[in-house]
Amino acid sequence: MIQNDLLLRALKGEKTERVPVWMMRQAGRYLPDYLKLKARYDFFTRVQTPELAAEITLQPIDQVGVDAAIIFSDILVIPQAMGLQVLMEEGKGPLLPSVIQEQKDVDALRTDTVEEKLQYVMDALTLTKKELNGRVPLIGFAGAPWTLLCYMVEGKGSKTWDKAKEFAYTQPLVAHHLLQKITDITIQYLKAQVKAGADTLQVFDSWAGALSPADFKAFSQPYLLQIASALKNDAPVILFPKGAWYALQDLSESSAAGIGIDWCISPQMARTFTNNKITLQGNFDPSKLLAPIPEIKKAVKEMIDSFGSQRYIANLGHGIMPNVPVSHARAFVEAVKEYRVP
Amino acid sequence: MIQNDLLLRALKGEKTERVPVWMMRQAGRYLPDYLKLKARYDFFTRVQTPELAAEITLQPIDQVGVDAAIIFSDILVIPQAMGLQVLMEEGKGPLLPSVIQEQKDVDALRTDTVEEKLQYVMDALTLTKKELNGRVPLIGFAGAPWTLLCYMVEGKGSKTWDKAKEFAYTQPLVAHHLLQKITDITIQYLKAQVKAGADTLQVFDSWAGALSPADFKAFSQPYLLQIASALKNDAPVILFPKGAWYALQDLSESSAAGIGIDWCISPQMARTFTNNKITLQGNFDPSKLLAPIPEIKKAVKEMIDSFGSQRYIANLGHGIMPNVPVSHARAFVEAVKEYRVP
Repeated sequence: MIQNDLLLRALKGEKTERVPVWMMRQAGRYLPDYLKLKARYDFFTRVQTPELAAEITLQPIDQVGVDAAIIFSDILVIPQAMGLQVLMEEGKGPLLPSVIQEQKDVDALRTDTVEEKLQYVMDALTLTKKELNGRVPLIGFAGAPWTLLCYMVEGKGSKTWDKAKEFAYTQPLVAHHLLQKITDITIQYLKAQVKAGADTLQVFDSWAGALSPADFKAFSQPYLLQIASALKNDAPVILFPKGAWYALQDLSESSAAGIGIDWCISPQMARTFTNNKITLQGNFDPSKLLAPIPEIKKAVKEMIDSFGSQRYIANLGHGIMPNVPVSHARAFVEAVKEYRVP
Repeated sequence: MIQNDLLLRALKGEKTERVPVWMMRQAGRYLPDYLKLKARYDFFTRVQTPELAAEITLQPIDQVGVDAAIIFSDILVIPQAMGLQVLMEEGKGPLLPSVIQEQKDVDALRTDTVEEKLQYVMDALTLTKKELNGRVPLIGFAGAPWTLLCYMVEGKGSKTWDKAKEFAYTQPLVAHHLLQKITDITIQYLKAQVKAGADTLQVFDSWAGALSPADFKAFSQPYLLQIASALKNDAPVILFPKGAWYALQDLSESSAAGIGIDWCISPQMARTFTNNKITLQGNFDPSKLLAPIPEIKKAVKEMIDSFGSQRYIANLGHGIMPNVPVSHARAFVEAVKEYRVP
């Protein structure tokens, strides 16, 4: 039994006496105890060692007071499990030396060994679940197929993702084969995460916003809908299509339990586009955590006033930045907890 | 007299027998003749030598067939004229060694010598106007105050503009002083551009989309409205608030003649948000110029069908990318010209 199940109740559309709160990327980056581990172990050692991943996952629960734990991992473990090499240089972002260029590259990707290759994620989830001892729910996650395609085709981060888009525009059938293959393995992966202990799942479509509305509908949305539908009897799914405000209505009619909202839309607009039908999560500007604490508290109150306190999960509109003082992260969480639900 | 005044008529809301077309960043980047000049002269030599700027401005008129010329220059000439050093490393973007951090830095900025210091822009406009000989209109431009603040505070490009936002959140009065100072000089600068030969003006708010709707309304919109209002009797103004789809309604009620639209909104939505009140410009995904030519032509037709052929200027949703083949840029322009207006 989970003692603080506010997050899960908000996702089910049940009444919550207080707004639940967590922060994307809350495990890592800005926390001094994380930085100590980072100095000793490289990125994939931290991800692939269940004891380290569990320790990092738990840090913000005790130190910042969030209402959920999200497993410390990375969306690029899926391309790795499919056979692509992924290097992570500290401060530089990911690098995939071999990229997908044509159908034979897609054919060469493995999809049959995900549970075996990503056993370390399952072990980390099971260990974290045990150590959480029912305090708060545990969130598992995966990257959205479009976002993973971006990295698998570009080989690294990009401002425009024009190589990924050129690939989709010039070889649409190959792109769809790749997206379907990623979708299939992601569904397996997320189901395994639930078996290993995840109470809810988030799908990060970090680069959705690079696409026009028509291209999002072609290259991202169908795969998000497949994932939400395939998981609907396993655990509540939160879709986070960063930048794709234009798709909120369609996604609100999917099998997802919640939608993550970035900060470039007003809460009222987000409620309107989703017809007040679905639980929303977001959408504090991560940069606003650099504002003075009284400003943070004021803005949090305004945000909850605008979203409303029900069917709502307070969060940032994207990941917390490394340069945020811990006291400011705490102030954000406190402000949510101090909000008086009518 | 201007022979091809389609652009100006579209901005006035007059009937156009064909959709006018130009491309942001059309002068430079992808054109082989530009690359030859780039190999011989550094960036600010190209910008500050009227003969070079005029030659670069004219290249796409003859070579790609666009319906307007936009003066080859840079938005960072304003911070330069205000006394900040701006370095431009090829392929690396701008670098401002001294940044704005507090009120005394704002106080030290000059606003009295813009016409003198930027005389080379006026000379380039006058020379280009003469060489155009009335073929097509000449567009002048400036950066929006918020976007210039971003560079003046960060000192270089950023994914998140979190330093600029931190500055605005922690020292809002200083930020507003800076924004007003940039606004005042920008109005002087744009008026001088009209006197020197610009037929219309575009204001680039390239980093509007970093802001939440509430912060855009606080830190960008008032200054865009001031600029549009101050110039309304001088020349038609096009505002391009990249990413700020949420502000389209407010901006459609401003003194601007047109609004530039990025590709992350459907034409129908853009028309709805602006109540069919104002001329819209855009919004082809720049990456889609990497698609096969038949796909480009098909997408252009769909775009015009959706915007409608009146009160409309075909353009990209952001600047053309350096890796676009010239034949693809030409196909984009041709497709607009081939569109049969009912």
